[in-house]
Amino acid sequence: MMDILHRIGIENSSPTTVYDALTTVDGLAGWWTEDTSGQAGEGGTVAFRFPPVGGFDMEVLAAKPGERVEWRLVDGPEEWVGTTIDWQLRQDGDWTIVLFGHRGWREPVEFMHHCSSKWGSFLMSLKSMVETGTGHPAPHDVQISDWH
Amino acid sequence: MMDILHRIGIENSSPTTVYDALTTVDGLAGWWTEDTSGQAGEGGTVAFRFPPVGGFDMEVLAAKPGERVEWRLVDGPEEWVGTTIDWQLRQDGDWTIVLFGHRGWREPVEFMHHCSSKWGSFLMSLKSMVETGTGHPAPHDVQISDWH
Repeated sequence: MMDILHRIGIENSSPTTVYDALTTVDGLAGWWTEDTSGQAGEGGTVAFRFPPVGGFDMEVLAAKPGERVEWRLVDGPEEWVGTTIDWQLRQDGDWTIVLFGHRGWREPVEFMHHCSSKWGSFLMSLKSMVETGTGHPAPHDVQISDWH
Repeated sequence: MMDILHRIGIENSSPTTVYDALTTVDGLAGWWTEDTSGQAGEGGTVAFRFPPVGGFDMEVLAAKPGERVEWRLVDGPEEWVGTTIDWQLRQDGDWTIVLFGHRGWREPVEFMHHCSSKWGSFLMSLKSMVETGTGHPAPHDVQISDWH
């Protein structure tokens, strides 16, 4: 099993604000994909779509306000089956530190390399949304390659 | 052991051009850190510095023109000891595909999370340098957190 790991810091923010960006449909639509729907609180399922190529359905396994969010993929690309995504939040001075893990990849396929870079780019979109009010969710996301 | 993996595509470029950006001091100084010195060809050692916090000395283990570059850390932060970095290049239509691996991390420490995100950001700097002529090397790199 292999994991994608990331760490960013969001300045002049609180873990509560970042938590809201991870556990509300409006928040998620502001940095990951505008085509987000469902229930983003604990026990809910959220549908993230990236027209025209498909998307992901995530079950919210855990959501502890201001501290931690965990998702489990319930539908999506074959390579993502069995993976989980977790977010840990904490305050360090003026910064909210976000530790991200997308865990349980069976093989280090080329698509995993792509998803690692793309998550990095979307985390910068989350940072931008919280810090400035403007993120770069799909379909306005930063293109990193021929795979978008 | 854990690896940091990334994939980007650089449009309207060739593996030879990207190879030059990885195996010349001028190329490396254009996207990673302006304070780069040494010999970046196979068998050489390159000193990458990020004043005031230190840097990395890399031995160039392999450099196959237009195809592959591999480095081994010879001096740097304790967490990087024993790690290697490899770059695989190939042409896909108008794109040069870059597969990146920073391999051999002993533990998934918080600094590894940071380096994963920071590599993603520097790979976008490499892409920008090759596509537009302007990268974002340190000290002009994109700040991703309190750790810079």
